[in-house]
Amino acid sequence: MNLTEASKRILIGRKLASHQLGETLLPKRIALPVFASDALSSVAYAPDEILLTLSLAGMSAFAFSWKIGLLVAAVMIVVVASYRQTVHAYPSGGGDYEVATVNLGPNAGLTVASALLVDYVLTVAVSVSSGIQNAKAFLPFITPGREGLWAAGMILVLMAMNLRGVRESGGVFAVPTYAFMIGVIVMVAWGLFQIFVLGSHLQTETSSYQVVPDPSYASFAGFAAIALLARTFSSGCAALTGVEAISNGVPAFKKPKSKNAATTLALLATIAVTMLTGILVLANLTGTKLVDPHGAAYFTKDGVPVQGDIPTVMGQLASTVFGGFRPGFYFVMACTLVILVLAANTAFNGFPVLGSILAKDGYLPRQLYTRGDRLAYSNGIVALALVAVSLVLLYNASVTALIQLYVVGVFVSFTVSQIGMTRHWTRHLRTETDPAIRRQMMRSRVINTIGLTFTGVVLVIVLVSKFTHGAYLAIIAMVSVFFVMKAVKGHYANVAREVELEGTADSALPSRVRALILVSDVNKPTARAVAFARAMRPTTLEAVIVSVDPAEVQRVITEWEAQDYPVPLKVLASPFREVTNPFVNYVKSVRSANPRDVVCVFVPEYVVGHWWEQILHNQTALVVRTRLHFTPGIMVISVPYQLHSSQAAVDRLQREDPLAWRRIGTGLSQTEMDHAEKGS
Amino acid sequence: MNLTEASKRILIGRKLASHQLGETLLPKRIALPVFASDALSSVAYAPDEILLTLSLAGMSAFAFSWKIGLLVAAVMIVVVASYRQTVHAYPSGGGDYEVATVNLGPNAGLTVASALLVDYVLTVAVSVSSGIQNAKAFLPFITPGREGLWAAGMILVLMAMNLRGVRESGGVFAVPTYAFMIGVIVMVAWGLFQIFVLGSHLQTETSSYQVVPDPSYASFAGFAAIALLARTFSSGCAALTGVEAISNGVPAFKKPKSKNAATTLALLATIAVTMLTGILVLANLTGTKLVDPHGAAYFTKDGVPVQGDIPTVMGQLASTVFGGFRPGFYFVMACTLVILVLAANTAFNGFPVLGSILAKDGYLPRQLYTRGDRLAYSNGIVALALVAVSLVLLYNASVTALIQLYVVGVFVSFTVSQIGMTRHWTRHLRTETDPAIRRQMMRSRVINTIGLTFTGVVLVIVLVSKFTHGAYLAIIAMVSVFFVMKAVKGHYANVAREVELEGTADSALPSRVRALILVSDVNKPTARAVAFARAMRPTTLEAVIVSVDPAEVQRVITEWEAQDYPVPLKVLASPFREVTNPFVNYVKSVRSANPRDVVCVFVPEYVVGHWWEQILHNQTALVVRTRLHFTPGIMVISVPYQLHSSQAAVDRLQREDPLAWRRIGTGLSQTEMDHAEKGS
Repeated sequence: MNLTEASKRILIGRKLASHQLGETLLPKRIALPVFASDALSSVAYAPDEILLTLSLAGMSAFAFSWKIGLLVAAVMIVVVASYRQTVHAYPSGGGDYEVATVNLGPNAGLTVASALLVDYVLTVAVSVSSGIQNAKAFLPFITPGREGLWAAGMILVLMAMNLRGVRESGGVFAVPTYAFMIGVIVMVAWGLFQIFVLGSHLQTETSSYQVVPDPSYASFAGFAAIALLARTFSSGCAALTGVEAISNGVPAFKKPKSKNAATTLALLATIAVTMLTGILVLANLTGTKLVDPHGAAYFTKDGVPVQGDIPTVMGQLASTVFGGFRPGFYFVMACTLVILVLAANTAFNGFPVLGSILAKDGYLPRQLYTRGDRLAYSNGIVALALVAVSLVLLYNASVTALIQLYVVGVFVSFTVSQIGMTRHWTRHLRTETDPAIRRQMMRSRVINTIGLTFTGVVLVIVLVSKFTHGAYLAIIAMVSVFFVMKAVKGHYANVAREVELEGTADSALPSRVRALILVSDVNKPTARAVAFARAMRPTTLEAVIVSVDPAEVQRVITEWEAQDYPVPLKVLASPFREVTNPFVNYVKSVRSANPRDVVCVFVPEYVVGHWWEQILHNQTALVVRTRLHFTPGIMVISVPYQLHSSQAAVDRLQREDPLAWRRIGTGLSQTEMDHAEKGS
Repeated sequence: MNLTEASKRILIGRKLASHQLGETLLPKRIALPVFASDALSSVAYAPDEILLTLSLAGMSAFAFSWKIGLLVAAVMIVVVASYRQTVHAYPSGGGDYEVATVNLGPNAGLTVASALLVDYVLTVAVSVSSGIQNAKAFLPFITPGREGLWAAGMILVLMAMNLRGVRESGGVFAVPTYAFMIGVIVMVAWGLFQIFVLGSHLQTETSSYQVVPDPSYASFAGFAAIALLARTFSSGCAALTGVEAISNGVPAFKKPKSKNAATTLALLATIAVTMLTGILVLANLTGTKLVDPHGAAYFTKDGVPVQGDIPTVMGQLASTVFGGFRPGFYFVMACTLVILVLAANTAFNGFPVLGSILAKDGYLPRQLYTRGDRLAYSNGIVALALVAVSLVLLYNASVTALIQLYVVGVFVSFTVSQIGMTRHWTRHLRTETDPAIRRQMMRSRVINTIGLTFTGVVLVIVLVSKFTHGAYLAIIAMVSVFFVMKAVKGHYANVAREVELEGTADSALPSRVRALILVSDVNKPTARAVAFARAMRPTTLEAVIVSVDPAEVQRVITEWEAQDYPVPLKVLASPFREVTNPFVNYVKSVRSANPRDVVCVFVPEYVVGHWWEQILHNQTALVVRTRLHFTPGIMVISVPYQLHSSQAAVDRLQREDPLAWRRIGTGLSQTEMDHAEKGS
């Protein structure tokens, strides 16, 4: 299926598979939902945050909501215009990390990468939290106080799906994204039609409420008012998150790639701006209000404080506009929930892609580079999910609290990327001589400079207005990530220097091989270990048993003698009934007595078919190997004995799926298996 | 220090170390707090649960509280009398698991063990939750809705302390346990003195509240009333949890052991009954009320519903009785919090002890048997903590919700143990001929039969009255644990049969050794792997590199040739830029081409000093080893290369603590190190 393959390509890692997957590229109508779900989903919570923040100053402040909305829309148009330049300049889809690294050097790139990594976590936390807040309007079993648990549960489900390698096709994105767009636009249009054409007095329930302002904002004038409006604007800028996604995906577009991507960007901006301003205008006309549950402001009706949860803006509008027509309400709310979950899921896909790029540059563990390594990929997904889960639990899925951390990272990345783009044009202008192209470049540089100015100013506003409200946590997280990645790169460089060969001095051969076999019983695994050890023909060979239970050891000695192995069996005392220490100490003593020889330790291991069987076996082998690693000149050799269960598991899986059996024990995905098959 | 050693002995595992620790035994005054903290701490929440449950039926029902308290006290006296018989019959301190296994067979023992394992989890969850609920009275930063997070945090702190091997001495138990006893008894006495002697009209804040009953209990007559009283009694029986602890600890008492243990049991019963009835009587006199926050009942004052959190019974009483004397209030509340945390901590000690006994009998992974194996011990602690954390998060640290699950397990264990004891006496009566001893045994059998009747009846009441309120979850958990342990035992038996040797057929030697070295670069670790592989003198030896980046591979080939190794270097293609699959497939092809030979795979590994360095290295080695295990006839040989960081870590630790360095990478405890030292 073309569609599936094409979208898989973007979501799973275009670069790695690009030379295999042929030329199935995305038309604009599919590219839009695939890349825009994150950006569009934010219109589900940005209006709420604008109204909530204004509520602190009481009733009169709500009048500012649509002005702030227009300001956010203006920033969005400027940012999109800037990214249209990026799309033309970097048709390879490098993204902000590449733009920053190429134009401003590795530290700028690393800054962007840190911001993006923190942002992925917050995208998951904010999107899922908003999904749960919206779901409360139509899923009554989500009770107040339990939102954090529901959000955590949903993130764990997403994690499980991503670990199992469930993947979205373009269709999975296209249907709910278009449904959401249509739902919101129809809702806004039908609401405005009722108000202006039918003359209905359309009012939400909250329109009858009074807002008692937070005492510290009661005057709403002077510096306090400006500070609050700045904070409101910063929260509204959450609507811009996810806009950069298209610029990463240019190579997936149909030709002309850059032009189509630029058109899609313009389309995205138009739709997002329409939806955002539409919702804010309708909210204004219907008297929709929200109060910040963490602020001191609260609702009253007829002078009595209002108890209980107030639905989200989307919930209030959908329920008012569609009135008695409940299917309309359910449709809009369900689409909102689904698109928010999809937005969270894009982070699960984007995180390992960025991780792979960073690993290639040595900033993250090397195994993240090859995303075919499912093990590393899984660790990334689990890490992302666990941090997001802690956040939603800590903030009880409060979008209002989480959003304070969110927008900083986005604008750090926007701003650094715009600096990079202006540098890009300046650099190219230095060598370019064609006047037409120079004019074009000049124009682009002007647009990016305007973009830089806007995003820079917004970044400063966000930092100043939100710093004490939580943004400082995001900054701390980014700085920590930055230095960890620096440290990883430094560590790899140090190790590489340390293990560098000086001449050929290190290849001196050990003079003799002394072999030991760790025995716990006389059985088939032991017999195999003995056979393999003998096949290696070591200089000396000795079996060792640790005496935990004297009667048991006596039985083993008798059976050992009955087998008539040409290998002596040594018994080690263990006054504390434990195997590891006496054995490890004995091996070390053999090693110290023979410093020029190499000591080989053969450990029989059980190979089993299920992870839970693994818990029941081989733990001694694991500890012995770990402990002995610290002493030079000792090699630990696992002699695997395959139990029936391992063979049965291999057989069963091979029958069902000829490639799947290789996955056992490594958690390898189907995709990787396909690769392996083609590659072998 | 004698005290420390002696209590360590009980808490950490008396049996394992008994022949080392000499004859330092516990006098009754220390044994009481060491074993009784769990049982005594439950008087902190049992009165709350009695009042809460009664509140459903409105104001008039509270009059039943002290009657229910007396009933619970009666059951406690009977249970303690029964355990005094156990203490005499099993001076080895076998506990309920041994009593059940010896007298009723392995399935009965396993039933008790399942109940106890589930109970340990609930002891942690309930004790910490009650601690947090009590702490709210004097720690205002624990805000409503966040109790679950605080409780989870506290459990994680306990987990960390136990993982680090922080251990309680007798003093740690004695001080807060006596402080709690004194605090509660002084509070009750001073309250009664004020009321009866000074004639004060001592009333708690809630005494002025009215309770609007749950509509379904409004009539409070007939079957509904009986059902509610039964449920109240069941919740009150939480006061009995932990009573069995002394019977497990008999060998730790000073001689005459059984007699001293029996006296301590009687003392425990006296104190617990005094505290419980004292609190209930005082609560009754001061008009203390509570409502079930999960029920439909609620408080009103002058007809207006009361908002906000109501303190626990302990909090209400302490604040009323001590009035303006705040230190008294803080003292009682702090002691309550500390003893509840200590009670939770006893579960962290008891869980691995029971795990060790069960592992010895083959019901749990073998490595749990030797508790010197810190790795397994840690897993048990982490598992216990994580399940308890999920519970407190899920129930937001609501003692009322958790207690529904709690009491079932305790009474399953009590009842099965009492059946076992009656069997014990009947069996001994069959052979005993001395009339004096026979009379004594008859008397004991009567007591245990009464105990059986009481605990059996309570078990039925608990099951019937709480089944749908959550007890079914505890039953499901116990049944699952039971069958998992059965399955583990079955698995070990199957594997033992499977690996049993038939004659000496399995020791046929492989004819040749084919060795491969996995190479990624030419450096010291590779040089060492080549040297070791050559030292083994295999029949064939070949180095293999996977071509992820052609330029890089070309560089390695050049350097390989410069080293002039007598080993050919084979390059494997990897169209998908990954190492594992091409290499694993190649090794398997070598193996299939030479079915009678053994294939040795040498993998260079980096040995590092910190866990986080481990993340940065060796991941390929790990995956290769796991994957190759499934194919018979392949051995994977780790050739460790010790980086400076590993040596530096070893040196540093050895300077600070000559034994500690062995811990690196295995998380071994100091105790185990001591053992190793003495043992080596």
